Amino acid sequence: MHTSSIFLETLHHRRQRLAELIDFPAILWSGGSSSRNFPANVFPFRPSSHFLYFGGIPLQNAAIRLESGKLQLFIDDPNPSSTLWHGETPTREEIAANIGADDARPIAELEDYLENAATIPVQDAATSTEQSLLLHRWLLPQQPPQGIDLELAKAIVSLRLTHDAAALVELRKAVAVSVEAHKAGMVVTSTAKLEAEVRAAMEAVIIGYNMTTAYASIVTVHGEFLHNNHYYHSLEPGDLLLADVGAETETGWAADITRTWPVSGKFSSTQRDIYDIVLAAHDACFEKIAPGVEYGEIHLIAATVITEGLVDLGILQGKPEDLVKMDLHALFFPHGIGHLLGLDVHDMEDLGDLAGYEEGRKRSDRFGLSYLRLNRPLRAGMLVTIEPGFYQVPGILNDPKIRDQYEYLINWERLEQFADVRGIRIEDDVLVTESGSEVLTAALPNQANNIEDLLKLPK
Amino acid sequence: MHTSSIFLETLHHRRQRLAELIDFPAILWSGGSSSRNFPANVFPFRPSSHFLYFGGIPLQNAAIRLESGKLQLFIDDPNPSSTLWHGETPTREEIAANIGADDARPIAELEDYLENAATIPVQDAATSTEQSLLLHRWLLPQQPPQGIDLELAKAIVSLRLTHDAAALVELRKAVAVSVEAHKAGMVVTSTAKLEAEVRAAMEAVIIGYNMTTAYASIVTVHGEFLHNNHYYHSLEPGDLLLADVGAETETGWAADITRTWPVSGKFSSTQRDIYDIVLAAHDACFEKIAPGVEYGEIHLIAATVITEGLVDLGILQGKPEDLVKMDLHALFFPHGIGHLLGLDVHDMEDLGDLAGYEEGRKRSDRFGLSYLRLNRPLRAGMLVTIEPGFYQVPGILNDPKIRDQYEYLINWERLEQFADVRGIRIEDDVLVTESGSEVLTAALPNQANNIEDLLKLPK
Ligand SMILES: [Mn+2]
Ligand SMILES: [Mn+2]
Repeated sequence: MHTSSIFLETLHHRRQRLAELIDFPAILWSGGSSSRNFPANVFPFRPSSHFLYFGGIPLQNAAIRLESGKLQLFIDDPNPSSTLWHGETPTREEIAANIGADDARPIAELEDYLENAATIPVQDAATSTEQSLLLHRWLLPQQPPQGIDLELAKAIVSLRLTHDAAALVELRKAVAVSVEAHKAGMVVTSTAKLEAEVRAAMEAVIIGYNMTTAYASIVTVHGEFLHNNHYYHSLEPGDLLLADVGAETETGWAADITRTWPVSGKFSSTQRDIYDIVLAAHDACFEKIAPGVEYGEIHLIAATVITEGLVDLGILQGKPEDLVKMDLHALFFPHGIGHLLGLDVHDMEDLGDLAGYEEGRKRSDRFGLSYLRLNRPLRAGMLVTIEPGFYQVPGILNDPKIRDQYEYLINWERLEQFADVRGIRIEDDVLVTESGSEVLTAALPNQANNIEDLLKLPK
Repeated sequence: MHTSSIFLETLHHRRQRLAELIDFPAILWSGGSSSRNFPANVFPFRPSSHFLYFGGIPLQNAAIRLESGKLQLFIDDPNPSSTLWHGETPTREEIAANIGADDARPIAELEDYLENAATIPVQDAATSTEQSLLLHRWLLPQQPPQGIDLELAKAIVSLRLTHDAAALVELRKAVAVSVEAHKAGMVVTSTAKLEAEVRAAMEAVIIGYNMTTAYASIVTVHGEFLHNNHYYHSLEPGDLLLADVGAETETGWAADITRTWPVSGKFSSTQRDIYDIVLAAHDACFEKIAPGVEYGEIHLIAATVITEGLVDLGILQGKPEDLVKMDLHALFFPHGIGHLLGLDVHDMEDLGDLAGYEEGRKRSDRFGLSYLRLNRPLRAGMLVTIEPGFYQVPGILNDPKIRDQYEYLINWERLEQFADVRGIRIEDDVLVTESGSEVLTAALPNQANNIEDLLKLPK
C-alpha cells in the first residue's frame, strides 16, 4: 500500500488542478474484471487509467467523486467470505486513509451524489452499463465523449499530458524492468529455438518483479507484420528478431520498448545497413525533441532520414525531400514515429484523438501521415516514444498498383538484395525536459555493436 | 493449423454425437476479445470452450451452426488491412477446409440461419448482446439456460463429460508442460526472494511452449488464503510455498496442478506430519477412483483420512467418523476434493452446476459439502482433479463462534505447535479409465522426499 506523504500530496495536487479546470463534479469508476471462459475465471483486473490517475491504487468495483479538490471514495467493505478466501483485505476506511479521501461510503450511496456529474466510460461492459444507467445517458467506451463528459475529458487530458514527479518515479520503474527484460531476451536468443522462448525469458523478468506486460508483447522474426502477436515461428540464423515488450507497474504506469537483434548474434551487412538507417532516424528525432517542437515535424525528420538512407543505398531513386512528399518513406515505414506514453501504452487512446491531437487538428488523409498518433507541440513533462522502423510488408510492396505507381522510384532489384531485412524497429521512451529531452530507456543499448555484445553474454 | 485426418474425424464424430441428442440446430459463437485499458489494448483472446469443442481452433468473431451432423462456419474473410498488419491470415475457405465445414459464409448471413436455433451465451458482453439481439431472447453468461438452450447445454454436457482420444492428446500436452513448470518453480526456489520470482519461472515454461495459463496462478506462502492471487510476499526459510499453476494448450485444453514445498528445501517435522496426512488423503482417493464410484464418496474419503490423521496427531479429539459428520474436517479442508477438468479448468462451470451435478442433485447446505463442485458417479473418460488440502484459515479458526462450538473437539494448544503449516494442497489430474484410473500428472512427484530431492537440483 502506498501511504507516503509524497503519494498523498500528489493525489491531492492532481485533484486540485482538476478543480481549477472544471466547476462540476467528476465521478471516475475503476471498473470490474472481465471473464475469460467462465464467470469465475477472469482476466487479471486492470482499473481504468483515469481512476488510477486520481485514485492512485488498483481498486476493483470502486468509484471516486472529485469536486472542488475533495475526494469521495465509494467502495464496499470486503464481505466476510472474501476475507476468508482472499486473505486480509483492507476496509473502506483503511483504503480511504491510504489515498487521502475526504469521505468514504458504500458503493450503493453513489446514487445520492450523481447530480451534474461528468464521467468517462470504462472498458468493461458491466461497469459502463452501470455508468449509463446511473447517469441516464449512453456511456460507451468506443464513443467520443459529449457535453460535460467532453469537458471532463479535456481537463484530464491537459493534466495527464505532462507527468508529475510521482508519475515519473513509476514510469522509470516500468522502464528499468523493461530494459532488463530486453536484455534477458537478447541473452536467451543464442539457445532459444522458438520466438515463444524469447518471449518467455522477457516476460519472466516482468512477472518476477510483480509487474504485468503493458500490452501484448510482439516477439517475432516477422517484424514486417506490425501487429504480430504469434510466437510459434522457429528462430533461424539469418533472422532478425523484433521484440516490442514493455512492463506496467502495479499502479498502472507503462513502458514501451522495441529492439531488433540478429538471431545469429551478428547482423548481416544488409541488415546492418538498414539498421543503421533506422538508428540514424531515431537519433535525429531524439536530437530535435524539445518543448515547443511539433511532434509532426519529428515524424517528418524520421521520414526524411530513412528516405535519404534508402537513396544512399540505391533502393530509392530521386531527391529525398521529393520522395517524402510523395510518401515513399511510408512504403517502408508505414506508421507514426510514436505516441504519448503514461498510464496507457498509447496514453489516453480511450479518448480517441483528444489527447494525441491538438484541438482543431484532425488525422491526415495522406498514407504517410494518417497513422500519426500524436500531433501537438511538445511540452516539458510529456513522455513520448520514438520508434522509427523499416519493414518490407508484402501486402504493400507486392501490391501491383503500388509497384506500378512507384516503378521508377524504387530500384526493385537492389531492394531484393535486402531480402533478409523484413522488419526493424528501434523504440525508446523519451521525456521532454525544459532543456530538451531525456531518454528514459538509455540503459538499453540501441547501437548495432552494443547489441551484438549483449548477444554474446552467457545465458 | 490442424489438418490431420484424426482432427477432422474427431470434430465430425463430436457433431454426429450431438446430432443424436438434439433435433434442432445449435449455433455456437466463438466470442471476441475484451478490452483492457483502451479499446485497442485487449486481453489475449480466448474463444468459448463450447465453440472450441466443436470448432476445434481458436477463431475470433466466428460462429458455427451444427445441425444433423453438418457444420456451417460463419466468419468474415480477413480484410486487406488486417493482412497488411497481422500477416497471412487464412481465408474463410481455408479455415472451412481446416475444420471440415460443410458450408462457409460471411458472418452477416448468420441471420438467415437462426430459426429454432439454440445457443449458449459466451462471456464477452459484445458477443452475448449480439446473441441476444439475433435470437430475440436474453442470453446472459451468468444466467442458467432455459428451453432449447437448456436442452443444448445438457447435450453438450453429456458429450464433454468424458474425453475422446483427441482431447486426451491435448490434455496430456497441457499436463506435460505444467509438470515442467512446477519443476522449474521448485528448482528456482532456492535462489528466489519473492513469490513473484517463482511464479515467473513457472509461467515462463508455459509461455515458452506457446501456451497460456489456464487460470490465474496461485504461488504463495499464504496458502491458507485459498484464492490468493498476490505474489509480493518474500520467501522465508520456514515457509511452505503453495503453487497452483496449470497450462492451457493453443486449442484450449487445461491442466490444473498444485504442489506445496518448503522454501528452505526441507519440510519441518510439523510440516511433514501434515503433508503426509494430505498425501495419504490424496492416495486414498486415487485408489478408490473407478467408473461407477460416486465422486462425493471420494470427497468423504479425503475428509475421513484427513480427520483420522489430525486425530492421530492429537489436533482433533474424538472418533474420526463422528468428527466428519460434524464437518470438523471442513475447518481445515474447506473446499471440495476436486472438479471436472477439460477445456475449462472447472470444466463447463459457465453452465452452473449442470455439468458438475447429476440431474436432480443440488448443492448441500452443509459447510463440509457445499463447496463440492462435482457430485456424480464417475465414468470412464472423465478427467477430475484430486486436491485435498489442509489450511489454517484465520477467518475460520479465529472465529469465536467456531472456537466455542468446537472447544472440546480441537486441542488448540496442540494445534499451535503446527503454526508453520498455514496451507498445503496436493492436486493431481486423474483420468477415470475402464479399469480404474490413471494419474496424468504422475510425472510430477508428490511425495515429500521426492520433492525435497527436486528442490536440491541446481537452477
Ligand atoms: Mn510504441
Ligand atoms: Mn483445481
